[in-house]
Amino acid sequence: MSVTPATPTDDTDGVRPERPLLPLVGPRPPERADAARNRTRLLEAAARLVAECGPEHLTMEAVAAAASVGKGTVFRRFGDRAGLLMALIDHSERRYQEAFLFGPPPLGPGAPPVRRLEAFGITTLRHLATHRDLLLAVEQEASRRHDLPPRHVRHTHLAMLLREAGAGGDTELLAHTLAAYLDVTLISHLTRQRGMALGRLEDGWLDLVARIVRR
Amino acid sequence: MSVTPATPTDDTDGVRPERPLLPLVGPRPPERADAARNRTRLLEAAARLVAECGPEHLTMEAVAAAASVGKGTVFRRFGDRAGLLMALIDHSERRYQEAFLFGPPPLGPGAPPVRRLEAFGITTLRHLATHRDLLLAVEQEASRRHDLPPRHVRHTHLAMLLREAGAGGDTELLAHTLAAYLDVTLISHLTRQRGMALGRLEDGWLDLVARIVRR
Repeated sequence: MSVTPATPTDDTDGVRPERPLLPLVGPRPPERADAARNRTRLLEAAARLVAECGPEHLTMEAVAAAASVGKGTVFRRFGDRAGLLMALIDHSERRYQEAFLFGPPPLGPGAPPVRRLEAFGITTLRHLATHRDLLLAVEQEASRRHDLPPRHVRHTHLAMLLREAGAGGDTELLAHTLAAYLDVTLISHLTRQRGMALGRLEDGWLDLVARIVRR
Repeated sequence: MSVTPATPTDDTDGVRPERPLLPLVGPRPPERADAARNRTRLLEAAARLVAECGPEHLTMEAVAAAASVGKGTVFRRFGDRAGLLMALIDHSERRYQEAFLFGPPPLGPGAPPVRRLEAFGITTLRHLATHRDLLLAVEQEASRRHDLPPRHVRHTHLAMLLREAGAGGDTELLAHTLAAYLDVTLISHLTRQRGMALGRLEDGWLDLVARIVRR
């Protein structure tokens, strides 16, 4: 998955291969009604497969079979398996992104930057924990996980807040440090393999923000 | 790859499947001379394949063919592809681990903990940059990358130094934050895709240590 725009194809559905998450959320481009119905049908089939067998068993072929369409349709629509997985969490990812970009403070604009940093980490930890299995499957699929759009959005947002907070230093690298704490593979490791409570990770985030911005 | 000891097998070579990197370095268990020769031959064939085709083309089958042995021999010896890849960087990984565990200060024991933290990051960044392609291949292979022994060693070492430095806070989580900065996939992303100089990452490390230990 790439953050550059998808190139046009000779897609028979009249749509481009889907890049469900833009670097920043915006309105989804209009689709023809039949394309939208097709998309909904494929996603419903995919969601059913995930619910029944787990995301690790979700394949493009299985979705095509479950939705009674050709395999090519699924590939044209979602690009690859990572695209399909991201489309499955598109709705909640959009709601999460809209909350920190445009929602009410302290998560959204209007609160002091350090307060927003604190709220962003807590919200992100809970978002990642909720969608852990799907997000882990996306990570495993993506060959260049640091290019995933959701990571890009988080990094950009953290860099902006660090700048506003006057944290100094190399903002881009400090933002990577904060983003690395909010990593679904790390969170999964700590909560699942090490048995840590999410509350401990939330406390750790607040402490980390205080250290990074030197309060 | 797991940090728990390998279980004995009925290996026809008289050796256990290899776990080349222990959580902490120690002497390698003695092997029979023919097993040692066999190991060397396989690793030489693997190194040749990596040099000629890149680590992404290294398979257990290709190594077996190149060394004129059965596929089962390669699997018994290295366990899986991640084990084979780790065996290939075993020598330099041991030297690196010995340097920070037992070597001269400021990297090894004897220097103040913050000075050791600084030296550890710089050494690790250079080590990861040098072996980037092989280490990336290991990461992609490992289904649970946070369980990889080299990560475990680094985390343990960082936690010890943070404790000695009196950093306070949740040492385990702070060590994960520092370790996340020393992540080969992040370093590869920043240097290769974003064109950052390694020197900038090294400066960023020194700044990060100062913030985390609140100096």
